Amino acid sequence: MTGEAQAPKPLAGVRVLDLGQIYQGPYAGFLLAQAGADVVKMEPPGGEPLRRREVHGGPPSYPLAFLNSNKRSAVCDLKVEEGRELLRRLAGAADVLVENFAPGVLDRLEVGWKTLGDLNPRLIYASGTAYGLSGPDRDRLGMDITVQAASGVMSITGEAGRPPLKAGPALIDFLGGVHLYGGIVSALYERERTGRGRLVEVAMQEAVYPSMLSKLGLMHVEGRPPEPIGNRHGRVSPYNVYPCRDGFVAIICVNERHWRNLVGAMGREELASDPRFEHNEARVAHMEEAEALVAAWTAERSRDEVCRIARECHVPCAPVRDLAEVNADPHLWERGFFENVDHPALGELALPTSPLRFDARSSGPLEPSPELGRDTDAVIAEWLGEASDERSAR
Amino acid sequence: MTGEAQAPKPLAGVRVLDLGQIYQGPYAGFLLAQAGADVVKMEPPGGEPLRRREVHGGPPSYPLAFLNSNKRSAVCDLKVEEGRELLRRLAGAADVLVENFAPGVLDRLEVGWKTLGDLNPRLIYASGTAYGLSGPDRDRLGMDITVQAASGVMSITGEAGRPPLKAGPALIDFLGGVHLYGGIVSALYERERTGRGRLVEVAMQEAVYPSMLSKLGLMHVEGRPPEPIGNRHGRVSPYNVYPCRDGFVAIICVNERHWRNLVGAMGREELASDPRFEHNEARVAHMEEAEALVAAWTAERSRDEVCRIARECHVPCAPVRDLAEVNADPHLWERGFFENVDHPALGELALPTSPLRFDARSSGPLEPSPELGRDTDAVIAEWLGEASDERSAR
Repeated sequence: MTGEAQAPKPLAGVRVLDLGQIYQGPYAGFLLAQAGADVVKMEPPGGEPLRRREVHGGPPSYPLAFLNSNKRSAVCDLKVEEGRELLRRLAGAADVLVENFAPGVLDRLEVGWKTLGDLNPRLIYASGTAYGLSGPDRDRLGMDITVQAASGVMSITGEAGRPPLKAGPALIDFLGGVHLYGGIVSALYERERTGRGRLVEVAMQEAVYPSMLSKLGLMHVEGRPPEPIGNRHGRVSPYNVYPCRDGFVAIICVNERHWRNLVGAMGREELASDPRFEHNEARVAHMEEAEALVAAWTAERSRDEVCRIARECHVPCAPVRDLAEVNADPHLWERGFFENVDHPALGELALPTSPLRFDARSSGPLEPSPELGRDTDAVIAEWLGEASDERSAR
Repeated sequence: MTGEAQAPKPLAGVRVLDLGQIYQGPYAGFLLAQAGADVVKMEPPGGEPLRRREVHGGPPSYPLAFLNSNKRSAVCDLKVEEGRELLRRLAGAADVLVENFAPGVLDRLEVGWKTLGDLNPRLIYASGTAYGLSGPDRDRLGMDITVQAASGVMSITGEAGRPPLKAGPALIDFLGGVHLYGGIVSALYERERTGRGRLVEVAMQEAVYPSMLSKLGLMHVEGRPPEPIGNRHGRVSPYNVYPCRDGFVAIICVNERHWRNLVGAMGREELASDPRFEHNEARVAHMEEAEALVAAWTAERSRDEVCRIARECHVPCAPVRDLAEVNADPHLWERGFFENVDHPALGELALPTSPLRFDARSSGPLEPSPELGRDTDAVIAEWLGEASDERSAR
């Protein structure tokens, strides 16, 4: 649908039925669409949950617009047999179906993997769930915050001595979604050789587990589960967020060169040979003092000044930025990560392209997310080779 | 290397040179190895940074063991021309090369994309970086904590009125790594049709951006960047972490049915028709009271009791678990997510399989991570068809 003037994208020609809701499924669909697949977002007549404002006469939600660039939209009512039959026929013409309903929901409607995989042995059926398609917790309801609780994320986030805290980003949903994308494309690759599709499964609880590796390593060494320690590391110093006159910066010294460069920039070269601070283990043993030295230096400077000095002396450092600053980041704009889209319902807004870049090219141009059901007839005509006369099914 | 008794895995036969360090590159390599590729972890003679303890005579680090199951290990010294030439020749026989050095490092050694892509037009060259291969911040040093600062993650994590806070998991590194995997597999699929490889690029700063979608949506509506609000949502209530007699639980009411069920279970049916709480908007307007009602009920019960009741009445709820509980989770064990590995250097330990499941099967059996350089000769013999007599290069 996009980029005809450029070389085809990696997934050009791949047909995807995206039955995703909220974030996990739709993010997999977003990555598929941005990589060039023909992604049809398929929703019930009332729309998926993110569509609620729109079906009540309002504009689409920003998240809906964000996740559905370059997709097409079709409506299919799975509550009636005609709709289920339409889904079966479209799945017969599709390469991929993505869904993140609770386990068993589509099976009970006879449009799950068992049915569709029999009808179309080349179909890749991707299921994203909170806890997976098996095991005793399979049917436990899971959303980002509850999986942050159950997975251990909250136990390692927050400040020492305070209640457990969630991470601000919906890392569960999005780690789930991008793993689902990876599974789907792996199965597409395999199908080129075997001719057969597959069930691909991702549980969000499992998708987040590897990201806790540092803390799991700490537990392996110390023999007990780690507790939150704010922005500190416990085994590296300096490693923290430090106050500036006008905000905060993050600084870490991964190696001794970083530390020598930092104390040099601070005009405190003597600290590099001070036994309390001469190597990382010493600094960890005197962490309060080491961290306070850095904080005293940053507190007298602006955020930009600290970052400029750190950059000049090759010390890892970054400003703590709010989301307005991120959306205005000249770096991201120069890389083409954002595009200004003239959205028919939301007006001009900046939306992201894909984090996946092929040959350094952004995934744009972005096409605005479609209104509900815009492409139902076109998809039926193209995929099934027939004019639509099944309006009752939609 | 594994699973010979079972059906081949999706990426069986794919040859990967994994030059990754720490987390981002090695996690992409982990997912590749678990999906069946022949992944050769290639390190300098002193090993990658995670190998430091081992080369000083200690056991390998737990993170090293975690990320390198089912990989092979080869040593190649890129500081000498013989080593660079060996890498070029192996890249000529490889399908994929993964690296997460700083931008330009391998180019300067003449073993970057430009060189290797010319030598082997079928090669997929995957680069993971903090800020990408282009743009003004390209050469800024980036680690998980500094990218959490620059990307906006810290600005939306933490409690109201307190300093910015990092998320506990290394979500930047791992979102970077799994996106890199997705890009690699997309390019493998494309190559089946075009016969040509590609440069695939992922910037961690971009990979984390979509996960902040809820807060970006809030900013779109409110016109200003959101500030951290702890575990609350701002537009949904109940949505929080609540104290129990023996820990904490996360509970959310995504819809009115959840709320009615919850107050029913609390024995407070009258709250469902109380004008302060009768629908979500009303509860958000009376958030302190609504949250306090739930907290008062949970505080008198054990974590397990609250979770059992919530499950029975179909309200999304989960215990806040620490990492020891997660590693002992019967659900994850029953699903085969963990395997007990008898690691030659670390002894018996539980390690995870892949979050990507194909046909509901776990990616095991796991093979313990190899010692440094174990497979150099074998890889040279297999991939280059020659006995190794180039020991000086390694």
